[in-house]
Amino acid sequence: MMNELTLIGIGTGNPDHLTFQGAQAIREADLILIPRKGSDKSDLADLRLTICDRVLGHQRPEIVEFDLPKRDADAAYLDGVDDWHDAIAVAWQTAVQTSLPEVKNVALLIWGDPSLYDSSLRIAARLNPLPKLTVIPGITSLQALTAAHAIPINEIGAPFLVTTGRQLRDNGWPQDVDTIAIMLDGSCAFTTLDPDKYHIWWGAYVAMPNQILVQGPLADVSDQIKQTRATARADHGWIMDIYILRKTK
Amino acid sequence: MMNELTLIGIGTGNPDHLTFQGAQAIREADLILIPRKGSDKSDLADLRLTICDRVLGHQRPEIVEFDLPKRDADAAYLDGVDDWHDAIAVAWQTAVQTSLPEVKNVALLIWGDPSLYDSSLRIAARLNPLPKLTVIPGITSLQALTAAHAIPINEIGAPFLVTTGRQLRDNGWPQDVDTIAIMLDGSCAFTTLDPDKYHIWWGAYVAMPNQILVQGPLADVSDQIKQTRATARADHGWIMDIYILRKTK
Repeated sequence: MMNELTLIGIGTGNPDHLTFQGAQAIREADLILIPRKGSDKSDLADLRLTICDRVLGHQRPEIVEFDLPKRDADAAYLDGVDDWHDAIAVAWQTAVQTSLPEVKNVALLIWGDPSLYDSSLRIAARLNPLPKLTVIPGITSLQALTAAHAIPINEIGAPFLVTTGRQLRDNGWPQDVDTIAIMLDGSCAFTTLDPDKYHIWWGAYVAMPNQILVQGPLADVSDQIKQTRATARADHGWIMDIYILRKTK
Repeated sequence: MMNELTLIGIGTGNPDHLTFQGAQAIREADLILIPRKGSDKSDLADLRLTICDRVLGHQRPEIVEFDLPKRDADAAYLDGVDDWHDAIAVAWQTAVQTSLPEVKNVALLIWGDPSLYDSSLRIAARLNPLPKLTVIPGITSLQALTAAHAIPINEIGAPFLVTTGRQLRDNGWPQDVDTIAIMLDGSCAFTTLDPDKYHIWWGAYVAMPNQILVQGPLADVSDQIKQTRATARADHGWIMDIYILRKTK
């Protein structure tokens, strides 16, 4: 049924992040699986359909919506994630099975890049039989952040670490590195650091029309970011933010 | 003269990596600065012009070629880089000054993403007067590598480090992290590690027609990668490669 599965990175909320390669992959799909509105952040719900409309002509692949299963927040973190990925794999397969029998190449439109803090590759590994898998890279929120601030992520020839708010909160500043990028932080983990030692470049809704940017020495802007974040979250009903921290010399 | 400078990430050797945003920025430029053939890897020399041809109509920005200064390989590493960046800033400004006076928005096409192991932002900071700077993110070789191998870069909720061959060779495996991505490695720094402890996903010329991929336990494929790399480099006259290493559990 699903001989081929293409995971297409579509960037981070700006439809112009789509690559020519991504547009071509959308056009070549037989069926595009889209999570149903309501199972996604509200401002983003229709963006996948907008992107499809922009690149598709009259010859359109079938577009099938499916309900994204909810994650069991009561289970232990990794167990909950594991069960959730199983359930999503079933949801994909069920949605494809209800479609026309000649469907071969199924595509999914992935926020950011399928390689970076995204579950789709792990979910795809649960499909039975395993389809031929193709991955199309897309612009990540980390790249949108560095572009918006017009900064390089690394110092010359130096390493940087990409990690999560949970890791920073639980384990503190990592060894042997002066620059870290924090994704998936629900609770301002930067407030656990000594504010006099770091510079922060923060962004919310990066690359979207409602993008907010703040940067400066952590001591100067930490409170501003906390307040801006709380207000924006209350106004929009959701928030996606990301930041880079660098030790000051 | 150069009121605005736009650094456009164009991806890693596949012209289809260009984003719609990148294409629009190319069309909106008054002048596009391109390093002259001979000062770039041979297979890539014309690729910038190919990309421009694809997205430009009859209304074309001026395309100005310039000679990329050579880096002083005899100087201390950071001094050499510093002087080199100064010289490139002068080369950009000289090239723009020889063009028509109404030039305002100058664009540069950057391999990968201007934020990741690229000097353009540091060179731009040397321009006098400082132009208004716009950065357009592009697909990096790291993303092309994970896409080609169809792997996530991170384990679930786990951090990863992006670093250089020199760092790995000089400092060994970094603390507190199980996954590292190595860029800019001229000398197979993975051979300095205990081969029984790691899995490697390696690629050369990723996303280009002559892409080569090897992956497996380091003990099994280390020699194969060394030989493949040496042969490919001899055949093409140059090589760009990148890899991810992960501790085996």
